[in-house]
Amino acid sequence: MERPSKGLVRIYLAGPEVFLLNAIETGGRKKVLCRDYGFEGVFPLDAELEVGGLSRAQAGLKTGRLNEQLIRSCQIVVANMTPFRGPSADVGTALEMGFAGGLGLKVFAYTNDSRRFTARTVEWLGKEATRDAEKRLCDENGMRVEDWELADNLMLESCILNSGGALVTHDAAPSERFSDLRGFEACLKRVSAAHPK
Amino acid sequence: MERPSKGLVRIYLAGPEVFLLNAIETGGRKKVLCRDYGFEGVFPLDAELEVGGLSRAQAGLKTGRLNEQLIRSCQIVVANMTPFRGPSADVGTALEMGFAGGLGLKVFAYTNDSRRFTARTVEWLGKEATRDAEKRLCDENGMRVEDWELADNLMLESCILNSGGALVTHDAAPSERFSDLRGFEACLKRVSAAHPK
Repeated sequence: MERPSKGLVRIYLAGPEVFLLNAIETGGRKKVLCRDYGFEGVFPLDAELEVGGLSRAQAGLKTGRLNEQLIRSCQIVVANMTPFRGPSADVGTALEMGFAGGLGLKVFAYTNDSRRFTARTVEWLGKEATRDAEKRLCDENGMRVEDWELADNLMLESCILNSGGALVTHDAAPSERFSDLRGFEACLKRVSAAHPK
Repeated sequence: MERPSKGLVRIYLAGPEVFLLNAIETGGRKKVLCRDYGFEGVFPLDAELEVGGLSRAQAGLKTGRLNEQLIRSCQIVVANMTPFRGPSADVGTALEMGFAGGLGLKVFAYTNDSRRFTARTVEWLGKEATRDAEKRLCDENGMRVEDWELADNLMLESCILNSGGALVTHDAAPSERFSDLRGFEACLKRVSAAHPK
């Protein structure tokens, strides 16, 4: 694990880019931007995972434990809430946002898809989107579609605001959905404004 | 909001059943089961939401704030991790699990789909599942598929175990995916064994 730089506020960089084949490179770009704004960026893959003798499940669980430790070592989380394999953010990112909120860290976030959650979910459901007798939007399992005019499930945006953070939206080109860092940089500017140096 | 019953350990009932058209009834069934095992079940919709004068977004955010307060009033969370609109758990549930873990609550969970996350994701991706030059499973965006032999994204199962909780798996019939409470009851038995009365 890299040694923390003395005196810099540490930001945990949550998001699905850990799944990119060039995850380390993308995390590195985010860390450089953090430095530009006077912060220390902490990427989940910074945790040094020694898997000798561990089963795959044990290695996965150890990774989670190390990520929790990294979050505890930070003061702020900046989460990438860009929808991932469905209409919502990556669940691992959502869990980390909540964990940080519970710890009392400030949770900032950005998404590279500015559409509202309701519109995205209806588009994702396609023909399966319907309305019940009371005209409420629901899916083919008779489960409602959230309609709060928020960016994702209400718990996510609520967690951000309750923690004292903010959400930034940006529209990336489809091919750059997980590599475009302009939304991330706009979010860093919000963090910087809230933590003048 | 219902008055807490004195002396009973309070369990926050996280899960996507809040989206069921009969959510209140389903939450009521869960609360009865909690009583049977000597606990006080707390359902997200127990929060009394007064929306007078609020925009939809404000009402959604207020709901989130009330849910955070309900979680803080509990000692344990039992989360329904059954995959919801995609290969993973509901993101709101994931956020609540993390929030509880950050607060130091014990997080138990169950899923009504016992398949491993990797198999579910590959099935969900269908033709878009592929392998890169190094034979790593990935999707059409060149993003890896987690392969840890866990039930969902590693952060979820890790959060459960780090908090001192446990995960129970059960296979519900497709038509009863969000109404079958046998996995929930099996999870309550685990909670009860960890908290003898």
